[in-house]
Amino acid sequence: MVFITRREHFSSSHKLDNPDFSPEKNYEVFGKCNNFHGHNYYIEVTLTGEPDKDSGYLMDLKILKKILLEEIVDKVDHKFLNEVEMFKGIIPTTEHMTEVFWNILKPRIESESPIAKLYSIKLYETEKNWVEYRG
Amino acid sequence: MVFITRREHFSSSHKLDNPDFSPEKNYEVFGKCNNFHGHNYYIEVTLTGEPDKDSGYLMDLKILKKILLEEIVDKVDHKFLNEVEMFKGIIPTTEHMTEVFWNILKPRIESESPIAKLYSIKLYETEKNWVEYRG
Amino acid sequence: MVFITRREHFSSSHKLDNPDFSPEKNYEVFGKCNNFHGHNYYIEVTLTGEPDKDSGYLMDLKILKKILLEEIVDKVDHKFLNEVEMFKGIIPTTEHMTEVFWNILKPRIESESPIAKLYSIKLYETEKNWVEYRG
Amino acid sequence: MVFITRREHFSSSHKLDNPDFSPEKNYEVFGKCNNFHGHNYYIEVTLTGEPDKDSGYLMDLKILKKILLEEIVDKVDHKFLNEVEMFKGIIPTTEHMTEVFWNILKPRIESESPIAKLYSIKLYETEKNWVEYRG
Amino acid sequence: MVFITRREHFSSSHKLDNPDFSPEKNYEVFGKCNNFHGHNYYIEVTLTGEPDKDSGYLMDLKILKKILLEEIVDKVDHKFLNEVEMFKGIIPTTEHMTEVFWNILKPRIESESPIAKLYSIKLYETEKNWVEYRG
Amino acid sequence: MVFITRREHFSSSHKLDNPDFSPEKNYEVFGKCNNFHGHNYYIEVTLTGEPDKDSGYLMDLKILKKILLEEIVDKVDHKFLNEVEMFKGIIPTTEHMTEVFWNILKPRIESESPIAKLYSIKLYETEKNWVEYRG
Repeated sequence: MVFITRREHFSSSHKLDNPDFSPEKNYEVFGKCNNFHGHNYYIEVTLTGEPDKDSGYLMDLKILKKILLEEIVDKVDHKFLNEVEMFKGIIPTTEHMTEVFWNILKPRIESESPIAKLYSIKLYETEKNWVEYRG
Repeated sequence: MVFITRREHFSSSHKLDNPDFSPEKNYEVFGKCNNFHGHNYYIEVTLTGEPDKDSGYLMDLKILKKILLEEIVDKVDHKFLNEVEMFKGIIPTTEHMTEVFWNILKPRIESESPIAKLYSIKLYETEKNWVEYRG
Repeated sequence: MVFITRREHFSSSHKLDNPDFSPEKNYEVFGKCNNFHGHNYYIEVTLTGEPDKDSGYLMDLKILKKILLEEIVDKVDHKFLNEVEMFKGIIPTTEHMTEVFWNILKPRIESESPIAKLYSIKLYETEKNWVEYRG
Repeated sequence: MVFITRREHFSSSHKLDNPDFSPEKNYEVFGKCNNFHGHNYYIEVTLTGEPDKDSGYLMDLKILKKILLEEIVDKVDHKFLNEVEMFKGIIPTTEHMTEVFWNILKPRIESESPIAKLYSIKLYETEKNWVEYRG
Repeated sequence: MVFITRREHFSSSHKLDNPDFSPEKNYEVFGKCNNFHGHNYYIEVTLTGEPDKDSGYLMDLKILKKILLEEIVDKVDHKFLNEVEMFKGIIPTTEHMTEVFWNILKPRIESESPIAKLYSIKLYETEKNWVEYRG
Repeated sequence: MVFITRREHFSSSHKLDNPDFSPEKNYEVFGKCNNFHGHNYYIEVTLTGEPDKDSGYLMDLKILKKILLEEIVDKVDHKFLNEVEMFKGIIPTTEHMTEVFWNILKPRIESESPIAKLYSIKLYETEKNWVEYRG
């Protein structure tokens, strides 16, 4: 079994805030992450399956790059995440972001390829903090 | 299922030496690692579970950072590992270190959180050598 | 001559916008950087001089770390840079940020040490874009 | 259960080309990868098992390094992969390379050690593209 | 004085060979670099000057990126360097490559900007080997 | 003018301690660095000059690698620096280490090459702390 990964980058701002909480409760739960701040995010998308016999590819990584740019990077890069359509009603923690990305990427990837399955989405918020989602 | 990771750093010295071996046998088994030397270690701790509905966090990574500093980094940073309490009677190979850290972190993490389980401890001795322990 | 460097990190949001420009002109000049977005910034501060004979240090890097945290990181980390006091009336491009940091750090460093001079401030906005200021 | 990893490096050239395809079809399938080009590859080999009681090692990483240099790096570094013996009749995509390396390393590692099993081979073609093979 | 840097990447193959040398002499001088092999190159281009008062930019790094892609990356990425026009009659050592890039970039950059001067070109052949050219 | 750099690695232990100080004074000056601890050091050696016309090299980096291994790495890797001959009577701060390395490397490099001059020695103690010496 083979696992192939493509890494992309985007820079966004966000603020962690639950509208059902009071300001005090938001500050207690989220601390300084309740302020407007931002990150350079790195996303790593991993597919799994058996490579195609003729090309030796599970999926051409240029295609996976194109999918990631169209579905994710173009929509979140240099944006305020709390106002991006895909996060409507969702607190953009790294945990939630990986799940939202999974739900967008899974049908697109599997419609592009009969052999590749989405295996994991890893999202680095900083060099010291990251989250992986496996469905 | 979500996996969250926090990375921390410490700088320590150690020496690989089995007191049941003769000096010759120690040198034969451990080579130059039998000398008194040191490393910049990087530890990555991964938890798994379902994020909390209200905060969107599996565990606030500021809390995981605090646990790592209190339980591990403050006890081993700028120390001679062979003389640190947690390694009493244990040869501080990277394999053993991950297991010792697991036994310390598992109860502490699980007492701090009803939803997060310890999944893995990864320890980098150099950029080219590392060990992961999964219980 | 010796040059010593300390690296620190902060995560902030900003928006490039000149209040003397029309919205159209701002978008033409700054493009997507005119949107509210954010970065993980890395700052590297370099001092130069001859090390002290007794300690072998030009400056203890724990002191340089303390200065950086107090003067810079604590004031900009998890903040919206356009509203931070030190950037009042200043467009927070990476070029301007290094100059503002230089003007804050130079007197503080030189009052802490009779032997170390500030040599350079380097600021990484992303892994592919950075700016250095040398006074 | 413990997982130990060793990372090594080699620089090679290759060209993705299926001799059963016409030149047009090759260019359509492989794009610019159909040209002669090259990479700095990073290989990470992971073994799993229970460490030896006396040494605290699953396998001395100096031995794993020696195996990697002899079996892989010495044969592919500064070579044109399409002409290297181990890739005879095989298109050297990253997917195929990990499988070829697995088939070479598995018997060698398991003949060197009664306790370590080969778990995974990860091969980085660039910082943004990589493949893992787990048998 | 401000120094701004943009980093880009390309993957190419090459072979170090002086046509005036015998094959034996080429092997003696260049060793395994006389074989057809390849690298992931990283190029860092640094400009210097005083930032523009209105924009706060020395040069918008999106423009410097565009110049680098058009003048360098598009011409060498996924190519065999010995056959690329700009290296006609030149052995593509890292030293020579930086000088060729300097001669191409200097007039283009200085015709795009009245305030930015080319200061340095740094080219990484591997993580352990690199060359800088300063004119 | 061209600048070429080679990077190498070693892992050592040390302790910062001035024998003319009392234990209290040593702890006051050096803090936790007064304990036995260790690091993964990275050394970067930069030479400058005009490349040779026939080879296109300032110095073959395989030769610079060999010099670094023989003169530095083999003598300090997996050693206790305070007891290494080259540091006799010298407190092994990063500042002092770069100066000691300079004094060893300068004559050796310049006797190996008529065209390359030693320009700088950079030594990373951690990812956040480093020192450069330029003679």
